[in-house]
Amino acid sequence: MKPLEGLVVLDMTRVLAGPFAAMMFADLGAEVIKIERPDGGDDTRAYPPFQKGESAYFMSLNRGKRSVTLNLKHPRGKEILKDLAKKSDILIENFKPGTMDKLGVGYEDLRKVNPRLIYAASSGFGQTGPYSSRPAYDLIIQGMGGMMSVTGPDEHSPTKVGSSVADIFAGLFTVIGVLSAVNARIRTGRGQLVDVAMLDCMVAVLENAVSRYLVSGEIPHPIGNRHPSISPFTTLATSDGAMNIAVGNDEIWKRMCAVLGMEEYVNDPRFADNPARVEHFHALKEILEERTMKNTSEHWLGEFEKVNVPSGPINDMAHVVHDPQVLARKMIVDVVHPVAGAMKIPGVPVKFSDTPAEVKEPAPLLGQHTEEVLTSFLGLGAEEFEALKKDGVV
Amino acid sequence: MKPLEGLVVLDMTRVLAGPFAAMMFADLGAEVIKIERPDGGDDTRAYPPFQKGESAYFMSLNRGKRSVTLNLKHPRGKEILKDLAKKSDILIENFKPGTMDKLGVGYEDLRKVNPRLIYAASSGFGQTGPYSSRPAYDLIIQGMGGMMSVTGPDEHSPTKVGSSVADIFAGLFTVIGVLSAVNARIRTGRGQLVDVAMLDCMVAVLENAVSRYLVSGEIPHPIGNRHPSISPFTTLATSDGAMNIAVGNDEIWKRMCAVLGMEEYVNDPRFADNPARVEHFHALKEILEERTMKNTSEHWLGEFEKVNVPSGPINDMAHVVHDPQVLARKMIVDVVHPVAGAMKIPGVPVKFSDTPAEVKEPAPLLGQHTEEVLTSFLGLGAEEFEALKKDGVV
Repeated sequence: MKPLEGLVVLDMTRVLAGPFAAMMFADLGAEVIKIERPDGGDDTRAYPPFQKGESAYFMSLNRGKRSVTLNLKHPRGKEILKDLAKKSDILIENFKPGTMDKLGVGYEDLRKVNPRLIYAASSGFGQTGPYSSRPAYDLIIQGMGGMMSVTGPDEHSPTKVGSSVADIFAGLFTVIGVLSAVNARIRTGRGQLVDVAMLDCMVAVLENAVSRYLVSGEIPHPIGNRHPSISPFTTLATSDGAMNIAVGNDEIWKRMCAVLGMEEYVNDPRFADNPARVEHFHALKEILEERTMKNTSEHWLGEFEKVNVPSGPINDMAHVVHDPQVLARKMIVDVVHPVAGAMKIPGVPVKFSDTPAEVKEPAPLLGQHTEEVLTSFLGLGAEEFEALKKDGVV
Repeated sequence: MKPLEGLVVLDMTRVLAGPFAAMMFADLGAEVIKIERPDGGDDTRAYPPFQKGESAYFMSLNRGKRSVTLNLKHPRGKEILKDLAKKSDILIENFKPGTMDKLGVGYEDLRKVNPRLIYAASSGFGQTGPYSSRPAYDLIIQGMGGMMSVTGPDEHSPTKVGSSVADIFAGLFTVIGVLSAVNARIRTGRGQLVDVAMLDCMVAVLENAVSRYLVSGEIPHPIGNRHPSISPFTTLATSDGAMNIAVGNDEIWKRMCAVLGMEEYVNDPRFADNPARVEHFHALKEILEERTMKNTSEHWLGEFEKVNVPSGPINDMAHVVHDPQVLARKMIVDVVHPVAGAMKIPGVPVKFSDTPAEVKEPAPLLGQHTEEVLTSFLGLGAEEFEALKKDGVV
């Protein structure tokens, strides 16, 4: 048994934030029915690169779901959606606010057919507020939400996080919101609207930047990879790239100096304790890199590990997918897609002792489960289904 | 009523990942009892900056919790923890794997006194695997997990995300794991161990980098703030800083050219369609910035908004906390701390229509609720409590 077995989720989402949230439900054991436009489906089905014509992007975000095509502009399509909503626990959508209402299948419409439905709307700016109707992209939200203002090599270079974390954070908070609403429904007997905005989520995950600014009045700026108050706690160049080192106290400092053959600096007044090392960070970094540049990351990391100096490589994807810990934790899993064939995708990062989650199925082809869901789950007859096909409803 | 009302959470966490997870439970309405060392408590109580001696860092991550001091090295301390676990639904800890077991209060010990207990362990590398016992810091995990390898101004500058997202992602997946286990417990009647590793989480949120690499064989590197396959979709310098622009199609391109007075480039073969603009990105960026540098971000963003060119500012904290949308969504909230006084902290990024979450109380003082919890919740007598104090157990 899986932790969310028995829950039925209608996934009306496209691209990233919503699909990521719905994917978590599939991994956790819920039945996830992805509703797609008959003409092409989720936009990301067209995103490169492709394996035998199938998008890696789409396949990595939609595993374990069933795909049903449905034309929501057709009156019969709306009716079918309502019938599906009647038999579902959860609906997740990430259209621009108002889109579902205009189609006649917004929260107010669907709660009438199923008052127990939990309706999650994930959007850039949320269902309310002055920017609600604006289009949102991850880059725009990372900029507006302050994440770029604290990321980058120096204060003049605000930098976007390489992964679309504004979308992904919104996806995770959506899952948390829906699961909380499932818990509330046990007592209230009612579903509700769960409204999650990428911008709100970005503000919530700035760590302490908001309160640090509000208390100190100092505006945080990018400071590269170093820690503001621990030193050396940073990235160091090596002969073949770079590595990270985290010297949290004076004992570690001494061990690090021994590894790098720089015992003469252990008691140098510029570096003798952490406050001094923070103050003289730039001088220290230069001294360190003079040494670390003389050998490879692998060499130094091996030496540091022997004497327990916290440190680690800066892995690119080629290294991440072969890392022994990543593999031991089953974070790269094999699936066989009906068209693309064998492929590897990221695993599930929550490990349960009693009801384990898993990636069980590959992503679906467009409409692969339309007939099955409409006949077995909704109970439509074969003739009725053929008529829907003929009329372009599915 | 709040969505998680009725659940009791023992928060045995320190610093960031665990406290963030437990904070979400408090915001969502659970009763969260934070267990702290009598000598100083959570390390972050000593992190600057301070408001009237109270840490902004601690206060922003521990709002809404109750603080109980408990010496887990004292036999009576362990007993009290077991008594608390007996009456709780959830325990969250983020010690290095093995620490709780060594103290005699690990999952196997506690499930004996409460088989319904959901025990969440959040750690750097997880409870299993070859790196399990290594110390982890956000920087080390961002490096090992591949996030740094895709973030930064160029391929030679892997960059840490400014916020400690490796910790925060682990916190969010911990909440998802626990809520899923709460759902499973309804059917199984049993609690379980939920094991979340920062490294696993980092791999799970790389967006499509893992599958893109595995399918194409190309290793993704940092490419600054631009989109790899849409153009111009990037950060542009202005006379007073920088702003983001997201030109998703040719219609938007034409409108953008009109705003910047560069109609002569609309049909320039280098820029006439998106593939051409992607190919000639660097030439295009130079042409754009020649113009955008002549006026302020505010000026250009006002003009772009008028004609619906997706764009946005790069807000620093001073702007984030005053943004009209952020304020309209109650993402900056006021609390009054018993010592620090009035302060503002980030709000809750999940909005529920029927059972709203909220930040209701400030962070607790160290041990503020020890007596209350031990007498009212556990039912200890006043004399018994005095003896515990005298013996250094609380």
